[in-house]
Amino acid sequence: MTTRKKNILVLGGMGFIGRNLVEELSNDPKNNLIIFDHLTQAGDAFRPGVKFYAGDFTKEEDLRKVFQENKIEVVFHLVSTTIPSNSNDNMVFDIESNLVSTLRLLDLMKDFSVPKIVFLSSGGTVYGSPEDLKPDYAFKETQSLNPICSHAIVKIAIEKYLFLYQHLYGINYLVLRLSNPYGLHHSSSKQGLINVVLRNILKGETVTVWGDGKTARDYIYVKDFAKLVRKLLEKNVNNETINIGSGTSHSINEVLSVIEKVTGKFKVEYQEARNFDLPKVVLNTDKLKTLVKMDLTDLVDGITETYEWLKQNHE
Amino acid sequence: MTTRKKNILVLGGMGFIGRNLVEELSNDPKNNLIIFDHLTQAGDAFRPGVKFYAGDFTKEEDLRKVFQENKIEVVFHLVSTTIPSNSNDNMVFDIESNLVSTLRLLDLMKDFSVPKIVFLSSGGTVYGSPEDLKPDYAFKETQSLNPICSHAIVKIAIEKYLFLYQHLYGINYLVLRLSNPYGLHHSSSKQGLINVVLRNILKGETVTVWGDGKTARDYIYVKDFAKLVRKLLEKNVNNETINIGSGTSHSINEVLSVIEKVTGKFKVEYQEARNFDLPKVVLNTDKLKTLVKMDLTDLVDGITETYEWLKQNHE
Repeated sequence: MTTRKKNILVLGGMGFIGRNLVEELSNDPKNNLIIFDHLTQAGDAFRPGVKFYAGDFTKEEDLRKVFQENKIEVVFHLVSTTIPSNSNDNMVFDIESNLVSTLRLLDLMKDFSVPKIVFLSSGGTVYGSPEDLKPDYAFKETQSLNPICSHAIVKIAIEKYLFLYQHLYGINYLVLRLSNPYGLHHSSSKQGLINVVLRNILKGETVTVWGDGKTARDYIYVKDFAKLVRKLLEKNVNNETINIGSGTSHSINEVLSVIEKVTGKFKVEYQEARNFDLPKVVLNTDKLKTLVKMDLTDLVDGITETYEWLKQNHE
Repeated sequence: MTTRKKNILVLGGMGFIGRNLVEELSNDPKNNLIIFDHLTQAGDAFRPGVKFYAGDFTKEEDLRKVFQENKIEVVFHLVSTTIPSNSNDNMVFDIESNLVSTLRLLDLMKDFSVPKIVFLSSGGTVYGSPEDLKPDYAFKETQSLNPICSHAIVKIAIEKYLFLYQHLYGINYLVLRLSNPYGLHHSSSKQGLINVVLRNILKGETVTVWGDGKTARDYIYVKDFAKLVRKLLEKNVNNETINIGSGTSHSINEVLSVIEKVTGKFKVEYQEARNFDLPKVVLNTDKLKTLVKMDLTDLVDGITETYEWLKQNHE
């Protein structure tokens, strides 16, 4: 029976996106999830029956061990050593740890005949600084890419290497250009407006907004993202680059007023805008809609669920 | 008087493109050319009055010395440690030696307040595998980029980092997406159809064609390229990505028949096509035409000049 299971390796499976994805994919008894992460806690503590490898993504020997010991059919690559806001501080590190390491991963996949990789790209940053866009623009996948952070340039380079490995070696890819996810299992204090604000509120801290609060983003509930990915995987969509977002945008101020409805009043402090913040990011999701059915959670409901979960789980 | 000269640093100034560019730019007495190259022969041997630094582009200290000793106003970045046909053999090397080294160069330019960089990109490879193109297509600069070699992916990543450094630090860039140049000072035996064939003929060797000879490219005489670059520099065109080519394409067989008119009969051997060869590459040069006047050398004339030069200079 175990031989008929599909071995899915999730690199970065203990992170925010990873945990949600592992939860969703392991609901299907045909899937056998394997987590690779640098966190030291065992995967079993997080989810029974999920095999866990502690390792460093930038060390080829750590990754090699996983492929040697398991016949992997799909690799989810969710690892990033940088986030948009810090990636310009050390771009060489960004390239070495993310781009070069991904090339080593692809070579391992070639050596071990792994047929497919799903890569988490950044819909929020790869499109970058818009040129000649109408006021009601939404980024299509074919849009020109003018990013203003190293994080996004590295994501784009990886996307292009995936295309190349498909061309040269037949390894199938799926590139997911995810917008701004929020929800359960989020722990970063440096990115993810909704989660950071909700945790601020729970701790009684002042909420910091960079800029005037008019900056708009495309927010998606992480559980919705995980479900969409599961559907794309079930449909075996290959060799496509797909925006995954809500297709609508909300300004920070709009989000804060939704949060206020859920949590009650809180204190906000406005600080100077950061030079890597784009005025508006919203993804065109027409392509995604042609591939899978989209049932998205309403922002109020998603924030309410997240807030309830955080009350139980915050430190 | 020397203080009013413009110090132009040409990285890779002893290469094929570099020599032609240095010749053209040093015709202007206002320009003071400085060559940095890994070749050991002194620059003066090549061109009187041109300062020469022997160094390794991948070594930051070698580059740093040049900026410490000279107040550079423009950097021409012509260095590449790979060519399209070998770049897929070791992609990590391609990234480390070209992309990471260019990031180090940009940081040096920031530290030494160098205001401008001109980067030689690859019009022949960055556009890659065409999608949904009409039979008479020509690649516009805004075309989607689907390259099938690492060389091109690295070029694209560098282009995007130049955009980022302009955004973050105000360093102006000019990206030149050059098509297939031929002409004087060419020495590679691995790329450059026209020159390789002409040298084959002079040596009495058989000419090898990969594929059926229908592969079409956009050939430009390297002297024309150098003149166009000089004009772009004089007009101080900044922060643009520009195709530089003839805007027309010739198949290998067409080129061989032009060569035959110049040199007389020679022997051709057809071999199996290579997986990095695209069927047709032709650049749309509308943008270039709006910026500078184009007087291009006819293919027969360019080949004749090249052949005459090779007769005098071949080993």
